[in-house]
Amino acid sequence: MYILMKAARLYGKTDIGIDDEVDPGSVGPTDVRIDVEACGICGSDLHEYREPEFTPEHEHPRTGASRPVIIGHEFSGTVSELGKDVSRFIVGDHVAVHPNIPCHDCVYCADGEYNHCDNSLGIGFETDSGGFAESAVVPEQQVHALPDGVELWEGALVEPLAVGLHAVRRSGMQAGDSVAVFGCGPIGLTAVQAARRAGAKEIFASEPNDSRRGIARQLGADVALDPFADDVVETITDATEGGVDAAFEFAGIGPAFNSAIRSTRRGGSITVGSISKDEITTDVDELVLNERTVTGTFCYGFPPSSFRTEFDAIIEAIADGHIETDTFVTDRIPLENIVEDGYDALLDPDTEHVKILVEP
Amino acid sequence: MYILMKAARLYGKTDIGIDDEVDPGSVGPTDVRIDVEACGICGSDLHEYREPEFTPEHEHPRTGASRPVIIGHEFSGTVSELGKDVSRFIVGDHVAVHPNIPCHDCVYCADGEYNHCDNSLGIGFETDSGGFAESAVVPEQQVHALPDGVELWEGALVEPLAVGLHAVRRSGMQAGDSVAVFGCGPIGLTAVQAARRAGAKEIFASEPNDSRRGIARQLGADVALDPFADDVVETITDATEGGVDAAFEFAGIGPAFNSAIRSTRRGGSITVGSISKDEITTDVDELVLNERTVTGTFCYGFPPSSFRTEFDAIIEAIADGHIETDTFVTDRIPLENIVEDGYDALLDPDTEHVKILVEP
Repeated sequence: MYILMKAARLYGKTDIGIDDEVDPGSVGPTDVRIDVEACGICGSDLHEYREPEFTPEHEHPRTGASRPVIIGHEFSGTVSELGKDVSRFIVGDHVAVHPNIPCHDCVYCADGEYNHCDNSLGIGFETDSGGFAESAVVPEQQVHALPDGVELWEGALVEPLAVGLHAVRRSGMQAGDSVAVFGCGPIGLTAVQAARRAGAKEIFASEPNDSRRGIARQLGADVALDPFADDVVETITDATEGGVDAAFEFAGIGPAFNSAIRSTRRGGSITVGSISKDEITTDVDELVLNERTVTGTFCYGFPPSSFRTEFDAIIEAIADGHIETDTFVTDRIPLENIVEDGYDALLDPDTEHVKILVEP
Repeated sequence: MYILMKAARLYGKTDIGIDDEVDPGSVGPTDVRIDVEACGICGSDLHEYREPEFTPEHEHPRTGASRPVIIGHEFSGTVSELGKDVSRFIVGDHVAVHPNIPCHDCVYCADGEYNHCDNSLGIGFETDSGGFAESAVVPEQQVHALPDGVELWEGALVEPLAVGLHAVRRSGMQAGDSVAVFGCGPIGLTAVQAARRAGAKEIFASEPNDSRRGIARQLGADVALDPFADDVVETITDATEGGVDAAFEFAGIGPAFNSAIRSTRRGGSITVGSISKDEITTDVDELVLNERTVTGTFCYGFPPSSFRTEFDAIIEAIADGHIETDTFVTDRIPLENIVEDGYDALLDPDTEHVKILVEP
């Protein structure tokens, strides 16, 4: 328990402060306090750092939060304080956090599609609590227990790994299918792992960064291609008699999007999870004449829907040793160094990092 | 039976000849001769007329056909001659023709995906037989019987109507869903009809041509919008609390494609069946952030797969009076006038025609 705590807060564009005397917040009746063990730096953290969009400049109408706000949303830790109505946890439990809180008040929530909520809140964005801090206060509904077989730090990987699992579920990919993954940043790599675990017959990875191609191979890619050196589409279509069953696009650039389409067989699926600010030019006839399907995928299911089980499925897969968590983490840094060794390292265009964990 | 017959043949670019002394072809053991009652002019006929692509310039390696070839592929008629191994028909049967013959030799045929065949043949394109002729010879497998409740000329509409049905099946649209159809040319209108019959709760149509908007309303659209006068996306999203469940795009231009995407709810589906020579610029984030799906649709199932039942489903729907065939046909012309009153009338940018039937 803290009177005041240390936390990283976003003040504004490219302005993060490491503050020593931050209010740790109070635990409401249905809240849980978590002493943070590890919190990953996500692509959306980098985006928010360069171009603040979700952290509120003025008092948020529902949470009351405004910048500077505590950031960080991929985290795990130990339960240290319980609200009086919390029933599923005890102090000392190891847990991972689901960062998205749906509004329960829009047409999508009314339909049980909580992950399409019109007004969801993100822990580490619109709230006054986050994972780059000594402790965080979150609603019990957002908390997932970690069993004995899962290291505490591994809990910080559940969120990004769930993105890959959700993408594979959205794709309709089936065991025995051939797969291609375009872009092997952190999320592309979770898709490689999820496709492998879902029974892919053969996985092709396309990624310009040499180091990440190596990691893709370690995580389950059979063939890792360099889009600047190899003819990726030709290599894949030749090796698969016309194209893979399912392609995944996590590069966020036009050439990767179009290559993903052309790398699939007739009737194949392309699942796109990358955010690209720019518009993309594409030949829609490639979809029509070949009856291909392009499916958008974003995050994962939100509580309390049954999609919430995506987090539990990942936790179980880690516990059972089906996911290589070590390979995925390329650095662990103290909170003090979050900007230099974390944000700046990941924003380097030549970065070889995949996931950097901050350990408050 | 004919010694020689009258037929419209494509000689080359914008060059159709109405020839009086054409060889009617011989009926092989598994073939059926059909005395043609009516044959519709299709968008792909217009495309082939302006830019020959499928009709072979030199002898086709499998069919032996070369230009001039008899054209026309949306046709019905009466069985007039049977090959010795034909068992499903007798002379005098009323029938409609399925124009696509898969190769049975590619990876897609091996998988039973005959409609994705790498080397399919199109009657009226790569064969030496077609519907703009007094008679046509086609394999028995391509022939569908018309029951008593279906007029002989209505059989010529089965093919285009099957395109709309296939699009709706591809979309995953369910009864009770809201629907928007962009582009109400002949195929867009078949999608309106198919969506109505599939139990759409509400159908929005977007079409610049006033006359076609009127026909869209007659065929089941609840609201028909003019994309040059109305804010189609805003009108649809306002009326549906965020967007329709399923949009269909049959306009083949970028603005319609992008409006179709923006007119769907989160998690909605956009089914695209238009061929557009030009590339399209689009904001892929609209798919990712809203988890929308874009599905290509092309033609319909090919025999002998179970998709073949799409043709029979349309025939049954016509027989049961569930499809307004009269509204769909805007002219009936003799074979002699096929160019002036058929092709030229449809190629007029201000055409108000939907389907023109040629009656040889």
